[in-house]
Amino acid sequence: MTSTLAKNPPPAFLEDLSVGQRFISASYELNADEIKAFARQYDPQPFHTDEATARDTFFGGLAASGWHVAAITMKLLVGESPLIANGIIGAGGEIAWPRPTRPGDVLTVESEVVEINPSRSRPDRGMVTMRSETRNQRNEVVQVLTAKLVAPRRPER
Amino acid sequence: MTSTLAKNPPPAFLEDLSVGQRFISASYELNADEIKAFARQYDPQPFHTDEATARDTFFGGLAASGWHVAAITMKLLVGESPLIANGIIGAGGEIAWPRPTRPGDVLTVESEVVEINPSRSRPDRGMVTMRSETRNQRNEVVQVLTAKLVAPRRPER
Repeated sequence: MTSTLAKNPPPAFLEDLSVGQRFISASYELNADEIKAFARQYDPQPFHTDEATARDTFFGGLAASGWHVAAITMKLLVGESPLIANGIIGAGGEIAWPRPTRPGDVLTVESEVVEINPSRSRPDRGMVTMRSETRNQRNEVVQVLTAKLVAPRRPER
Repeated sequence: MTSTLAKNPPPAFLEDLSVGQRFISASYELNADEIKAFARQYDPQPFHTDEATARDTFFGGLAASGWHVAAITMKLLVGESPLIANGIIGAGGEIAWPRPTRPGDVLTVESEVVEINPSRSRPDRGMVTMRSETRNQRNEVVQVLTAKLVAPRRPER
């Protein structure tokens, strides 16, 4: 089992990935304006759209929509160069938000390859299961995403 | 077991929900400009940002980011009035995208309450598991989300 920690690794084919490989993203600072703009468009609930109203809610203050955190996590996973040769293409997965994301939070994503399954029916590809923890500037986990990603095999020459 | 199909039900407390209850959302038409705008900000990969480049990719044409489909699903779930009294607050769940969402697709969300668990440690709330299928205008499922939602108990008077 190899374990690497690379910020901008070269795009990988299925054969290049191994269980235990780790990747860390760049970081992203989220401000209140972006939290509210995303929420107005896609998750218009008071705890995501208005500081004053948010105080008396479950969240006790403005918090980012979980789907906004997921979208930023994707932005960080895609990064400047794709980790996987055909891009980051998710078939699905599990997601959890153990704590809220607040204005001013600086998010970073740490990912680990946890499973690799070559496809039986499609010899040109496989599925890679990647666990990605999105952490804030206090190293607290704000999202855990375990995603199944499509990865191509290296083309024969 | 009751089964209802309501477009704008009154906000529900934990006691008002029952396994088998169903809800259907309004619909939302997604166009290419919105697909590309979301992708440029959060999922800048060629199959989400550019029609011409998308043709030669896994998707064979422009497709919405899965996180965009998730965000639109949330918009439809929140609707004009919240289904649950404190809002739609997800702790997490499972998500899958069985097929791509394309420009011009008209999305609708059909949801069903599949499990209700009063909290043992927090007598004022419980967890509701809701399965939401996002369908296109051909009634094809483009996303399945099984989410755990926080629901408050009706306050004592």
